[in-house]
Amino acid sequence: MTGLTDPFSVDDADTLHEECGVFGIFGHPGAGALTILGLHALQHRGQEAAGVVTYDHGQFIAERHPGLVGDIFGKKSDHAANLKGDYAIGHNRYSTAGGSAVRNIQPLFADLTGGGIAIAHNGNLTNAYALRSKLVQDGAIFQSTSDTEVIIHLTARSGKGPVVEKLIDALKQVEGAYSLVALTAKKLIGVRDPWGVRPLVLGMLDGAPIFASESCALDIIGAEFVRDIEPGEVVVFTKDGVESYFPFARQKPRFCIFEYIYFARPDSTVEGRNVYEARKAIGRELAHESPADADLVIPVPDSGVPAALGFSQAANIPFELGIIRNHYVGRTFIEPTDRIRHLGVRRKHNPNRATLAGKRVVLIDDSIVRGTTSKKIVQMVRDAGASEVHFRVASPPTRHSCFYGVDTPNEHALLAHEMNIEEMAKFIGVDSLAFISMDGLYRAVGEERRDPKAPKFCDACFSGDYPIRMTDEEIAKEGQLSFLVEVS
Amino acid sequence: MTGLTDPFSVDDADTLHEECGVFGIFGHPGAGALTILGLHALQHRGQEAAGVVTYDHGQFIAERHPGLVGDIFGKKSDHAANLKGDYAIGHNRYSTAGGSAVRNIQPLFADLTGGGIAIAHNGNLTNAYALRSKLVQDGAIFQSTSDTEVIIHLTARSGKGPVVEKLIDALKQVEGAYSLVALTAKKLIGVRDPWGVRPLVLGMLDGAPIFASESCALDIIGAEFVRDIEPGEVVVFTKDGVESYFPFARQKPRFCIFEYIYFARPDSTVEGRNVYEARKAIGRELAHESPADADLVIPVPDSGVPAALGFSQAANIPFELGIIRNHYVGRTFIEPTDRIRHLGVRRKHNPNRATLAGKRVVLIDDSIVRGTTSKKIVQMVRDAGASEVHFRVASPPTRHSCFYGVDTPNEHALLAHEMNIEEMAKFIGVDSLAFISMDGLYRAVGEERRDPKAPKFCDACFSGDYPIRMTDEEIAKEGQLSFLVEVS
Amino acid sequence: MTGLTDPFSVDDADTLHEECGVFGIFGHPGAGALTILGLHALQHRGQEAAGVVTYDHGQFIAERHPGLVGDIFGKKSDHAANLKGDYAIGHNRYSTAGGSAVRNIQPLFADLTGGGIAIAHNGNLTNAYALRSKLVQDGAIFQSTSDTEVIIHLTARSGKGPVVEKLIDALKQVEGAYSLVALTAKKLIGVRDPWGVRPLVLGMLDGAPIFASESCALDIIGAEFVRDIEPGEVVVFTKDGVESYFPFARQKPRFCIFEYIYFARPDSTVEGRNVYEARKAIGRELAHESPADADLVIPVPDSGVPAALGFSQAANIPFELGIIRNHYVGRTFIEPTDRIRHLGVRRKHNPNRATLAGKRVVLIDDSIVRGTTSKKIVQMVRDAGASEVHFRVASPPTRHSCFYGVDTPNEHALLAHEMNIEEMAKFIGVDSLAFISMDGLYRAVGEERRDPKAPKFCDACFSGDYPIRMTDEEIAKEGQLSFLVEVS
Amino acid sequence: MTGLTDPFSVDDADTLHEECGVFGIFGHPGAGALTILGLHALQHRGQEAAGVVTYDHGQFIAERHPGLVGDIFGKKSDHAANLKGDYAIGHNRYSTAGGSAVRNIQPLFADLTGGGIAIAHNGNLTNAYALRSKLVQDGAIFQSTSDTEVIIHLTARSGKGPVVEKLIDALKQVEGAYSLVALTAKKLIGVRDPWGVRPLVLGMLDGAPIFASESCALDIIGAEFVRDIEPGEVVVFTKDGVESYFPFARQKPRFCIFEYIYFARPDSTVEGRNVYEARKAIGRELAHESPADADLVIPVPDSGVPAALGFSQAANIPFELGIIRNHYVGRTFIEPTDRIRHLGVRRKHNPNRATLAGKRVVLIDDSIVRGTTSKKIVQMVRDAGASEVHFRVASPPTRHSCFYGVDTPNEHALLAHEMNIEEMAKFIGVDSLAFISMDGLYRAVGEERRDPKAPKFCDACFSGDYPIRMTDEEIAKEGQLSFLVEVS
Repeated sequence: MTGLTDPFSVDDADTLHEECGVFGIFGHPGAGALTILGLHALQHRGQEAAGVVTYDHGQFIAERHPGLVGDIFGKKSDHAANLKGDYAIGHNRYSTAGGSAVRNIQPLFADLTGGGIAIAHNGNLTNAYALRSKLVQDGAIFQSTSDTEVIIHLTARSGKGPVVEKLIDALKQVEGAYSLVALTAKKLIGVRDPWGVRPLVLGMLDGAPIFASESCALDIIGAEFVRDIEPGEVVVFTKDGVESYFPFARQKPRFCIFEYIYFARPDSTVEGRNVYEARKAIGRELAHESPADADLVIPVPDSGVPAALGFSQAANIPFELGIIRNHYVGRTFIEPTDRIRHLGVRRKHNPNRATLAGKRVVLIDDSIVRGTTSKKIVQMVRDAGASEVHFRVASPPTRHSCFYGVDTPNEHALLAHEMNIEEMAKFIGVDSLAFISMDGLYRAVGEERRDPKAPKFCDACFSGDYPIRMTDEEIAKEGQLSFLVEVS
Repeated sequence: MTGLTDPFSVDDADTLHEECGVFGIFGHPGAGALTILGLHALQHRGQEAAGVVTYDHGQFIAERHPGLVGDIFGKKSDHAANLKGDYAIGHNRYSTAGGSAVRNIQPLFADLTGGGIAIAHNGNLTNAYALRSKLVQDGAIFQSTSDTEVIIHLTARSGKGPVVEKLIDALKQVEGAYSLVALTAKKLIGVRDPWGVRPLVLGMLDGAPIFASESCALDIIGAEFVRDIEPGEVVVFTKDGVESYFPFARQKPRFCIFEYIYFARPDSTVEGRNVYEARKAIGRELAHESPADADLVIPVPDSGVPAALGFSQAANIPFELGIIRNHYVGRTFIEPTDRIRHLGVRRKHNPNRATLAGKRVVLIDDSIVRGTTSKKIVQMVRDAGASEVHFRVASPPTRHSCFYGVDTPNEHALLAHEMNIEEMAKFIGVDSLAFISMDGLYRAVGEERRDPKAPKFCDACFSGDYPIRMTDEEIAKEGQLSFLVEVS
Repeated sequence: MTGLTDPFSVDDADTLHEECGVFGIFGHPGAGALTILGLHALQHRGQEAAGVVTYDHGQFIAERHPGLVGDIFGKKSDHAANLKGDYAIGHNRYSTAGGSAVRNIQPLFADLTGGGIAIAHNGNLTNAYALRSKLVQDGAIFQSTSDTEVIIHLTARSGKGPVVEKLIDALKQVEGAYSLVALTAKKLIGVRDPWGVRPLVLGMLDGAPIFASESCALDIIGAEFVRDIEPGEVVVFTKDGVESYFPFARQKPRFCIFEYIYFARPDSTVEGRNVYEARKAIGRELAHESPADADLVIPVPDSGVPAALGFSQAANIPFELGIIRNHYVGRTFIEPTDRIRHLGVRRKHNPNRATLAGKRVVLIDDSIVRGTTSKKIVQMVRDAGASEVHFRVASPPTRHSCFYGVDTPNEHALLAHEMNIEEMAKFIGVDSLAFISMDGLYRAVGEERRDPKAPKFCDACFSGDYPIRMTDEEIAKEGQLSFLVEVS
Repeated sequence: MTGLTDPFSVDDADTLHEECGVFGIFGHPGAGALTILGLHALQHRGQEAAGVVTYDHGQFIAERHPGLVGDIFGKKSDHAANLKGDYAIGHNRYSTAGGSAVRNIQPLFADLTGGGIAIAHNGNLTNAYALRSKLVQDGAIFQSTSDTEVIIHLTARSGKGPVVEKLIDALKQVEGAYSLVALTAKKLIGVRDPWGVRPLVLGMLDGAPIFASESCALDIIGAEFVRDIEPGEVVVFTKDGVESYFPFARQKPRFCIFEYIYFARPDSTVEGRNVYEARKAIGRELAHESPADADLVIPVPDSGVPAALGFSQAANIPFELGIIRNHYVGRTFIEPTDRIRHLGVRRKHNPNRATLAGKRVVLIDDSIVRGTTSKKIVQMVRDAGASEVHFRVASPPTRHSCFYGVDTPNEHALLAHEMNIEEMAKFIGVDSLAFISMDGLYRAVGEERRDPKAPKFCDACFSGDYPIRMTDEEIAKEGQLSFLVEVS
């Protein structure tokens, strides 16, 4: 999957977006700075906003701002210096249009009687609307339009005892996917939903425990990887040690297989498997399943590179960087006039004619979402002189929307939902098109095949087999989530 | 009262600060712009932040920012243009140190089932801490540290029917001073507390009703003054007309007499009396009560000017601008080194030696708070060559703190609480010192005298006679209002 | 003269604008901060931009920014802290539309062989265009569109010896009005043109000499006033002492009489006369020359206040603040829709109906420029219920443009150039109108009368008698000053 | 060469920096936007600032700001919209510390008699200091500290006829490397120095001619590549057509060979050779010259990738992405405490342990500058478990500074200047180290070998053979370039 689309497009509408990265550290004198670094390593999971909350001498200190971690916490501001204290949690956010208000930037915070709690959440609740409606009816006042705030209200209203029990009580009421970290004056808490849809790992640095969405956030600060938090596990660190609970009804784990395909960083190891090696294995499987008679293997940069290397090695066809990516592409750019737009501006990618001219090319991309980007890339490669273009995709056809923490278009905007393979090949203009099979994908991540009765991963975007109930999809939602708009 | 103090001081610690101005308009196509203009006219009531919420086609639109109205809604931003819709309310805010977080900028907003409500509040609740503690215990999550949010939570949790009844239900639970305006999708509501401590007037423009803290906010847009909202009155405008209620237990009105002395703008008419004329009358009373044998009457600018004119006319001593004020003084300025500080920099006021040299001077100021400013002004006037300095104050000695919406120092920081007149005269370095008497003040605002059993005004800062219960002062407050600090 | 006009107008087109204030200090460890304070006191002479250049250890350090002094050098920026060194000069700037580019903000600086020079200039050259054209023809490259830069180029190209001689050589070639301060690595230089059109005073603080446009800039830092720099004088301070030269052909001094009427701060003493007292004397003269049978004397605030006091005292008619000014008016504000504009918004001034209703009023203003503001003020006062309005102006009719440092409209936009008194009275809608006579004005500033053959002041804006040659007005100017536009 | 070094370092002191990219277009209605896009494609040549000057209806319009092109001309500002007109030139800038003042941002502009000229320059003059000193002595006033301004002053002072002749006259006086574009009201001019050290290509879009540093700037807007501008050529476009001159003494061309190694974008074709293919060829030569017995070929990302691919293909050793780069690394980041710094934070690169553990690795980088980065990368790869590390460098040892437009450290800071290969291998901690030979490098770019008597390229950084005179290096420079410091 790539973000090319309209070269002027701001929000890369043809890309799937992970919605969050989380990080937490307990009992380290550099907690704030380490959390900033951890979020920097997790920047790929959310680029719209970032926030850190530390706890210091009776106060929670928050710095939550729109932008990239490096910009928010750059040397020009006091934001990093303000984050005093030995405990910290942080959050990177991607948000859908309309939900970008500052009030939605996490970690969210609530004063409770005698204390406070900050929460950072990766995932998506599937009964948030239903719960929110009920809470508003009961007089709850929401600060944000984030589903995460539902967890906070349920925690605040829980009749249970200590705050961990309140939080567990709240989580028992929510449905959906969540990997979350929470901070109180005395505790750092990490939780994964019973299916373990989103990743969450445990690390250690100088004796201080760390939670992070991916292991690359441990690497950046030289922390040691300890283990994955287990699906349904609640891990609580206090000054006196650690406790682990499994308070929820046990489920068969269903880790998101798309984390291996696209979301996670290639140098991360999540759920026991290195992401780069998984992607290469997908490329190899793809070469075996759907070979192509070609001169070059060309990745759609950057996400297609590992699969293209695997394909190249298995097929024994040279791997070449035939498409160059401009790494300075940001989120804003000039508003093009019609006169400029028709020129077919190549702001993000440029094919290298010297490499491609007269060659039969295998293009490798991680996925096809709407297909508009693939179509443009193919055209670009043909314009550069390629004599044949074969398209190989490192995931099965994406036919269904995700409701567990990934921003996907409505299924009718998904090319694979609307067309069969042949139609898609015609639409994007290739000589041949193939996707990896579901079994091939499972083989690449270490399974023998996909067991339709008990699949080991969440693959709902390919299969439509949704493991977790989706209450909000079932009810007739009326009205809007909030009546308040904050324009600037 | 003046803001001179330390010439580098940012927050003018020797000045009393009004905490808010409010404005609302219902059913005018320029509602947003008119509210901005109204807040601009009310800028003297709060200079730290301003906000406007409009309602347009099913959505409330908020622009709430720190700074002066003219800066926030200047041509360089889209803030004003964003405020579409025919209904609007707005708020100017002064805030005490620590409470300046953006989340405290009003109007506050809450989604209710099936709608929303925005509230802007001038005044101060005296049982906010007690109510908030109880609400947090019941699971309420506060967005701000503002006392106003208590009203919103009580409204949201009220079991009563339509939103006006919910709001009245909430207000029945609060104690303190409030003049507030509220906006829903269908209603504009204006309320004054049963004692009518803070002002609130009703105006009309092109058939659209307007609420404003002072009449000067009507003048700026050419609106017609209709009447004062009465103490304890709830006025509700809908498309279909207006309704007025008196749902609270009736009280003897106690309008804040300090509004006449200092807070209100001189061109405003509040509670039936023009402020400029009231101040001149105070000056005349003062001249009769405490004459001085002098050559010149000099106001401490700008607030002392009307009383000085009244004094001058009654005493037949020439009025002169012997102290010039620099109107470009803002809230931030260079941090002075000790080397600079010792120079006695006169950033805000400068005496005019040519006018003062060799003259016997009567200085007129509106009040004395800590006395440090008065001391510096007197010294400055002596340095400019005045041969005698007689100080006359247009209010009785300020001996008590205000809990009804004015930011006053602890009473032990009030000069008049700690010293008698003679000691004060010595402290500020004058040849004679006199304050207007309580009866003189009442005469100046149209009463025969102050009736100690049933005073017509709230004069608690002079008399210590607090008309409204102060629950939060009575309980032992533990802990802090919020555990969250947002530094930047 | 007032700036009311269109209440939304940004640039107060009906007001005359002084173009600059200058300040310099030599050999004080707080030179940068003291210069900032001095500029703050001179803020009324230019509000568009300000700059300070200090010299420290072999380098000149510049901070030149758009905005008010207090905003530019506020605590939020490092601008003040950066200005290290014991020598400093500074400049406040007002600029006409189109000339507001950052590159025009003074002090201007040039590297010379073996050193550098910074210059800050108050005034206007009348042969700048001619000199610039010649310099460009000779290969000079201009950084700015400021006339001041001509002086710098002439200095750099002078064949004379030390830098003071070069500067004098340059100044001998320019015509026009200038009070300027210059700083080199070893010298602080102050110069006034041979006619002394603009003010420049000398002060002393802790042994360090100071130049400033007005004495109020000495007062703010507690510096001692020494004397006015004389017309045509060049004063040079070095570590070793002071030298004074009169290198130019001697002229009869012609100090700008409008400085007394409007430009200078009332607490300043310039050319031996206190401004406030001068204005009061004008008011007294006016009362004798053109009395009015009225109940109240009302100043147009703030500039009309001293003359109104003088009129009130001489006429024995009570002085009242019948028009209240909003001191929060800034340079930017919402762009009004037509719907709002027609309402006759009173953003800057508001009449006090309680004071004016039913009264016969004498309005006092300092001058009439275009007349549109006066017309609106008069209408406003009538709307507030005044039964008669008599207008008295504290200057003679302004019939001619200024070319010596004041931004005036083209003479055809000056009401008094186009109409006689009677027509003007009708235009602005008053019952009577009178201006002070030229002789009356001269009496108020200490002369017996104006001697038409040798007037003591520059009064060209009233008389058309321009003392200094205006070369640029005589030649046919072709083309534009610069071909470069920097929009943002 | 990589920018890793201190992971917190702002300015990547261990990287060579190209100093500029230039672009110009003549007679296209979207000139401003197209120039912005061209600069965006050339962003790798300078990331500190960017500027565009257009010509429209008698005026030159400039937008010159610090930052990346995408940020400067993003949708939030009016900068792009302001650039009206059909002619435009633009410039990307990298600058050394101390020279980052806004006044140095190009294109520079000068008013000439009857017109104006804007100039954008890639390269570096080697007699700029000498010329500047002379010019200042003659009264020239410099706006900037840029060497480019010397060209402007010489142009302005030239006694020759039309502006093109003046410019040629100026260029005849300068020494050094330059590829520049200039714009007047009627002409677009492109020039390369007689040695053709820096690239400059000619393109065409909709009939409008374009100059650009590299062909990738043509690709982004869909323009057609026409040809390289020849060394010593002056190309002038007017409405009436094009003219080409060779006014300078002819020299043997010496194109910078480092453009192929590192500076140019891989998808560019400069001087008739595709950069990506050249880099791959270097890798192949390197594999032949200095093979290694290893399991994996690992590029130091991103610049080492093409050479690593060439090496991998020639050596038949698998290419793997064993080091992952964080593409969100920006120029500012938190200032690390000592406590954080010692952790060995990996902000920019992270090795992938799963790929590297137990493997014999060939690391490929484009060059070694100071060596500190290479040392850290090697340590990082060893920490990740590599059993052997062989380092191969795609350029000969960098032993000399560049004076022709590349920011290099003093030669004593260059590792290869201070150590032999063996010492270097020990310093960076590798099992073997090899650089490509000079002849191998020449073979990779199409020559048979390097002819020491007449080398086809400028390779002074490797050979010390400087083709162009370096006057400023020979004279004893006294004093500083400018005495002015603009801190903010």
